[in-house]
Order: sequence, then structure tokens, then C-alpha cells
Amino acid sequence: MSEAIEAHLIQSYPAAVETLKDFCRLQSVSTDAAFRDGIRAAAHFVRDQLQASGMATVELWETDGHPLVFAESPYLPDRPTILIYGHYDVQPPDPLDKWTTPPFEPTIRDNRLYARGVSDDKGPMLLPILVARAYAEIAGGLPVNLKFLIEGEEESGSPHFEPTVVANRARLACDTVISADGAMWRADLPSVMVAGRGLTALDVIVHGPGKDLHSGRHGGSAPNPIRVLAHLLASLHDADGNITVDGFMEGIEPPDPAIRAAMPETRFDVGGYFDSIGAMRPDPLPDTETLLTRQWLEPTLEFNGISGGYAGPGTKTVIPADASAKITCRLVRGQDPIAVRDAIIRHLKARLPSGYRLETIAHGPGTIAFSLDPDLPALKVVEDVLEPFLGGRPIRVAMGATVPICAVFQAQLGVGTVFFSFSTSDEDYHAPNEFLRLDNFKLGMIAWTRLLARL
Amino acid sequence: MSEAIEAHLIQSYPAAVETLKDFCRLQSVSTDAAFRDGIRAAAHFVRDQLQASGMATVELWETDGHPLVFAESPYLPDRPTILIYGHYDVQPPDPLDKWTTPPFEPTIRDNRLYARGVSDDKGPMLLPILVARAYAEIAGGLPVNLKFLIEGEEESGSPHFEPTVVANRARLACDTVISADGAMWRADLPSVMVAGRGLTALDVIVHGPGKDLHSGRHGGSAPNPIRVLAHLLASLHDADGNITVDGFMEGIEPPDPAIRAAMPETRFDVGGYFDSIGAMRPDPLPDTETLLTRQWLEPTLEFNGISGGYAGPGTKTVIPADASAKITCRLVRGQDPIAVRDAIIRHLKARLPSGYRLETIAHGPGTIAFSLDPDLPALKVVEDVLEPFLGGRPIRVAMGATVPICAVFQAQLGVGTVFFSFSTSDEDYHAPNEFLRLDNFKLGMIAWTRLLARL
Repeated sequence: MSEAIEAHLIQSYPAAVETLKDFCRLQSVSTDAAFRDGIRAAAHFVRDQLQASGMATVELWETDGHPLVFAESPYLPDRPTILIYGHYDVQPPDPLDKWTTPPFEPTIRDNRLYARGVSDDKGPMLLPILVARAYAEIAGGLPVNLKFLIEGEEESGSPHFEPTVVANRARLACDTVISADGAMWRADLPSVMVAGRGLTALDVIVHGPGKDLHSGRHGGSAPNPIRVLAHLLASLHDADGNITVDGFMEGIEPPDPAIRAAMPETRFDVGGYFDSIGAMRPDPLPDTETLLTRQWLEPTLEFNGISGGYAGPGTKTVIPADASAKITCRLVRGQDPIAVRDAIIRHLKARLPSGYRLETIAHGPGTIAFSLDPDLPALKVVEDVLEPFLGGRPIRVAMGATVPICAVFQAQLGVGTVFFSFSTSDEDYHAPNEFLRLDNFKLGMIAWTRLLARL
Repeated sequence: MSEAIEAHLIQSYPAAVETLKDFCRLQSVSTDAAFRDGIRAAAHFVRDQLQASGMATVELWETDGHPLVFAESPYLPDRPTILIYGHYDVQPPDPLDKWTTPPFEPTIRDNRLYARGVSDDKGPMLLPILVARAYAEIAGGLPVNLKFLIEGEEESGSPHFEPTVVANRARLACDTVISADGAMWRADLPSVMVAGRGLTALDVIVHGPGKDLHSGRHGGSAPNPIRVLAHLLASLHDADGNITVDGFMEGIEPPDPAIRAAMPETRFDVGGYFDSIGAMRPDPLPDTETLLTRQWLEPTLEFNGISGGYAGPGTKTVIPADASAKITCRLVRGQDPIAVRDAIIRHLKARLPSGYRLETIAHGPGTIAFSLDPDLPALKVVEDVLEPFLGGRPIRVAMGATVPICAVFQAQLGVGTVFFSFSTSDEDYHAPNEFLRLDNFKLGMIAWTRLLARL
């Protein structure tokens, strides 16, 4: 059956490209109210495509921002239910004068389709809808239960995404989420992203005198909050940068061993990395595994900002009233964002000298790490499906950053998210001249067909 | 002879008050170009008063700013030469609506003369000129060699003072400087200020990545300059705030033991001090001697400012390119400002981890501490003269701040400065309704007469 559907998709591929071009003409920039009509048009376009794909239900879920599109296929008992995530909104097209052809006039050059949003995420997102339609037309229906949740605010921080998921937990229930968003780590390296770090954030403020004081008159006798802040911050790491906070590492579970095992295959150039960020190469230079472990698999406690007293040119002989620092921690599997933050606050309070007041400000509840169960059946299916296309078994990679949607699906629906995308990170998706390799678009149709057949 | 002169001064006291009122009518605000005419008028007033006092030479020394007035008395061999320092410029009078009577219309209420600049420094500065005139009129001349150096930019940071002293070293040569500026430490406590701390200043900048980085993507692998700055700054003091920099204390000489001995007499209220600066009282509370020693007699290494990364509301997940701190040190007798700064830089460089770059910016050559020789004859004379007026032997006090003129006289002329002022620190001299106690003005005339007789 899969072969007949694949043949149909190859036959109708030119029409699929035209559909994608139509989609890309819609100016669905979510961050700018001037594009409101384009956003509505894109939401309606997605709704119409889903209606043409044999879905039992298609709905626009309105929010205080842009709507989400929800759909579900006719229910098949004893078959798994897959929730497909994607987004129809795009980045702003500026700077316009850097585009070779206009951002909302899709143009093919060298078998690449150039348009704003074509790689992130319109092309990858359209694939499973087109494949569902082929299943409906050729086989009379899907081999699995599919739900779609396509949002319109991904490029503006998804402010209404989690509340919508919370309000619709029952309707979104599923066995696995497959994200059609998220690019391959590197164009020349088949990979599947299986872990991302969580986040917790707080501000730390040390209060000393009631107002700024003259450092000549009062120096030596008045409390200096910058001095105490420096001592407190310095106590959070040892000289090698290892975190020294009691309780910080509590609950940590080991990562998927495949991630560490795959590190040598990444051929990650450590020296080149330091060059690329404009930093001096440390001596000795860490090896690839050490560096990627720090970036992917270990928690961090980073200072994002520090301030206090006079910061202008020259000198000002002042002892400031207070000094503050902004801290964010990236978390790994098993760490609780609130417990980590509390551990830091306990650590700081225990070290605060007499004569100073410590204030801490928490920013939100934090985000748990994303970490896919290494034995998740859907993950193995994805790897099996991808292997023949990509010239090798895809390696499992992690990312240091935080992917909020994975945390939302894990926390609210209790399921993992598998990434299944056919864009690659070199396709300029937040820059002018964004493009999608049409070979990958065609390949993606076949891959989605096989994925749904095997799940 | 002194008695005849004192009698003459008491007889002519009403005329002296009128002269002071005339002086106070001149609007000699040095920081505001709108008062340029008032500044010139005040300089000419001082010149005329000195000419009427039997000086052999009176000159206006022009600068790129406001002129200094220089005078010297007819030379007497085998007599000491005293250089008297003061200033004819005043603070701005704002806010005008807070004055009970206008700032440049001198008014007597309750035997206090109210006017801008009457306490700082027109009244105290006029005293030695009036006394010199009395000596000329009654005794035909002075018992010592006097030089006067009266500046017009004290309230605007004395930018031309040191260059003028440097350019006129030979003409300013003297045995001792006596400053008619500088108030008594406290109105109810006779005191002489015999020490002030020096100063050295530098900025410290730690450079990490070439630009701000995303702390999710790069956290753990990229250098974080705030973390390293915190470690470097924290290494400069131990947990109790004691400076740990090798070489920092080098060359320190013990202070005049009379300062420490006088501390209990100050009846300094340590708890009230912390209340007054709006800080929490440390537990345990230091005793008076410990606190005043820290404020007067020990060097400091204070952080005046710290900055790096994001300082706005909420969070921004950034690893900043650099982080910096501003440091000033107050120095005590025997410390070399440049050597201290170099010791700090050496200390920081030795602790900089690999992968970071340290930049330091020096601010000027610094200022050595002011510290009067405890056995200076002029100091003893001043104490002897003051004792009968003030109801007790004046105590010797220090100040934590830096007095640039003392450093200039010490460095350029090789002489100490003795403070001999008849204003007190409660006379609102940088605020509305500045006043001078006329009892102290009268008393000052007698005291200056005796001082010149005994030197």
C-alpha cells in the first residue's frame, strides 16, 4: 500500500510544489500587527488543506493572539495516536533589500525554493498534510490516528501555546508527538535531536547602605554590596567552573548513551568553535567529547548580567546602595527547575555576611529538560525510516538550548517529542534568501509516508 | 604686642563684619559661567584687602580658568615662612527658594551671619588678612613671613591649582602651609585634622567571547566573563573584607598615635552610624576604635561599579562579551598609588584563567595620603593657641576622604598642611541658609593673632 501512495505522491509532486508556493505567498509574520491579514489567510490555508486531507474534525482555536489549527483523523481503534506539531507563522522578512527575489514571491533556482518561511516551517509542516491526503485518496484513510496542532505564534515566543494545550489536554491526548519543526543539526550529517536542556532563572540583589555613599568618607566602614555580590557569585563555581551548589545536581538521570557515543562522529572542531565565537582558545583545549558534553549534557549556572554603582567613563567614588546579578541555569534530565533555584537561594543565604540584605526574584516556574526515552518505539521507527535516505544511520544529538514545546508536551500530555524535519540549519531561515531544498521536500513526502505506515 | 593688636581687632570688629558682608555680596560661584563677573570682583576684593595689609607683593595669577591671588609680606630673615591657603569662590546658591534671606544679601540673625560662602570659605579666609592688617597698623609689620595663595576654583575641583603650584614652586617655598579652609570635624568637639587618605583608581575589564552569545546554545562551553570577573574580584578580599593583595600594604607607616588615642573621646556612636547610612547593623557591632580605624587609618579597596551583560527587567539568555568593574583604593601614609595599582593588576593577572583576556585602565597617577608629622612645631602651636578658646586640648582626627591640596603641597613643596579654620561642619556650607557663627569669627581674629605671634 505504501508503494502505491509513494507513486501517487511522486506523480503529484509538481502540484505539491505549487501548493507550497501558494502557502508561501501568504505573508504570515506573527510579530508584526501589519501582517494580521496574512496570518489569518495562512491559518485558513492550513485549515483548508487539512479539510481536503480526510480529517474528521478541523477547527480554528482562537486565542488572544493568533489562532491554532487543530485537526484529527477518523478514529481507528487499536492504532497509535500521533500528534503532529508545526507552525504556519514566519519570521519578519527584513532586510528586504538583501533578498534576490521578493520574500513573498516564491522562486525556484537550482532546485531550491526561495521564500520567507519555506524552510521554517511551511515546507516541512505541509508534508504530513499532503501525505495524509494521499492516504485518503489512494487508501481511503490513514494507518494511524493523526492529530494536528499547528500554531501561529512560534516566531513570537508562543505566548498562547501552553495555555491552549492545558485547556485541551483530553482532545490532544496521544502516544507520541512528532514535530515537523526543527532543522537537522548539520546539512552533511544525518541526525535526530533527542534532548534539550531545561531552564530556571532568578535575579540576585545584594543591598548595603540605604543610598549611594562617598567611598572616601565611608570606605572601610560602610558595607559594599558589590564586594559581597562578587563573593557570593564566586562561591557558586570552583576555579575550574564546576558548580558547587549543594543540591543542584539532585535527581539528575544519565542521558541516552547514544548521544555520547555519537559525539566523535560529529567531527566537531573544538578550536574552530572558539574561533567562531571570537574567544581565545583555552589552553589546554578540551577534546570534542568534553566540549559537547558541557554544551549538551551538563547543567549550567550562567551569569547573564551584573550591575551596580557607577558604569560610566572615568571614576566616581561611590559605594553603591545595591548590586545585582541575573542568573539562568540550563538543566538536564531529572532536575526540577524550582528545586534548583531554591538550592541556589539556600546556598547564597547561607553565605551572606551580617550587615547585608539579600533579595531574590524568580522568573516564572522554569522549564524541565527535554529528553526522549532512548527506547521510544517512534524514535526507532524514525531512525529506520531516515536511514536509507540519508546515507547512514542518523546519529542522536542533543542541544544546549531549551525547546519550550517539548517541555509543554512532556509536562501537560506526558509524552515525548520526536523531531522529523526536512529542513537543514544552513537554509537561512532567520535571514534573507531563506530557501528549502526541493530534493528534501520530495524525499520528505516519501519519508512521512513510510513513517505513518510503520508507526 | 599681641595684646595691643588683639585690643585693636576687638575695637574694629564691627568694621571687620562689614568687610565680610561686602565680600559676601560678591557672587563668586566658580562652577557657572554666568557668575564670571562675581568671580573677578571677588578676586579683586581679595587683592585689595591684601594690598591694604602691608604685603610687599600682591599679584593676580591668571589661568585658563579663574585667577589665584598671591601675596607675600616684606621678608624678615631668620623667621619662618608660612603659606596661607584659602579660596574666594563659593558653591552655587540653588535652590534659591529655600533661603530665608537671599544668598548674596548677608543678614545677621542670632549672631550668625547668613550668606552663600560665609562659612566656606570667605569668613575663615578673611581672618588672616584682617590680622595681617592689624599687625601692619599697630606693630608696623608681621612677626613671621607670610605668603597667601587664595584660589577661585576650589568648588569646581581645582583644575588649575596643581599646575600653578608646579609653575611657581620657588615663589611658594615655605616652612608650613596653614589652611584657612576645612571645617572642624564636629561643632561640639575641638579637633585638628592631621591625616587624610590617598587615592588610586583603575578599571578592570574581562573579555570573553567576541560578541554576546546565546546562553542556551553556548552555555557550558563558551567563556563567561562575569563568572571570571566575580572570581577575580572575590580574590581581592577574604571573607571578612581584609585585602589579600600581595604588596598592597607595602611601605605603610604607622599613623600619629595621637589619632588612635583620641578615638574614644570622639564618642562616635557606631550603631547610630549604620542607622545614619541606612545599612543594617552588623552583628557583632564593631567598637568605636575598630570602626574609626577602618574609616580613617586603614587602606581600602572598594568596588565603585560593576557591569556586564543584560541589566534590564526580566531575563535575557545571554553570555556577554565582557564584564567590568571600577576600583578605587584609599591609601594611608607610606603607600605609593602606582605601586598599589600595579600590585592589584599583578594579582589579577596571576589568577586569570586561560581563555580570557584582562584589560586594565588606570585613572591618573593617584594621590598619596596626607599625613602631618606629629612633631611638626606648627601643629603644636596651633593646638596650644586653640586650647583656651575651645575648652580643652583639641583632639587629633583623621578623615577617610582625600584632600588634594594637602597632597599637592606635600608633593610639590615638600611641606605639611595644618588646618586652622573657624567654621564648623554644621554650618550648611553646601546647602541653603549657609551661615557663620560670628562668635567664632571674632574668636578667630584673636586666635590668628596669637598663632602668628607664636610661630
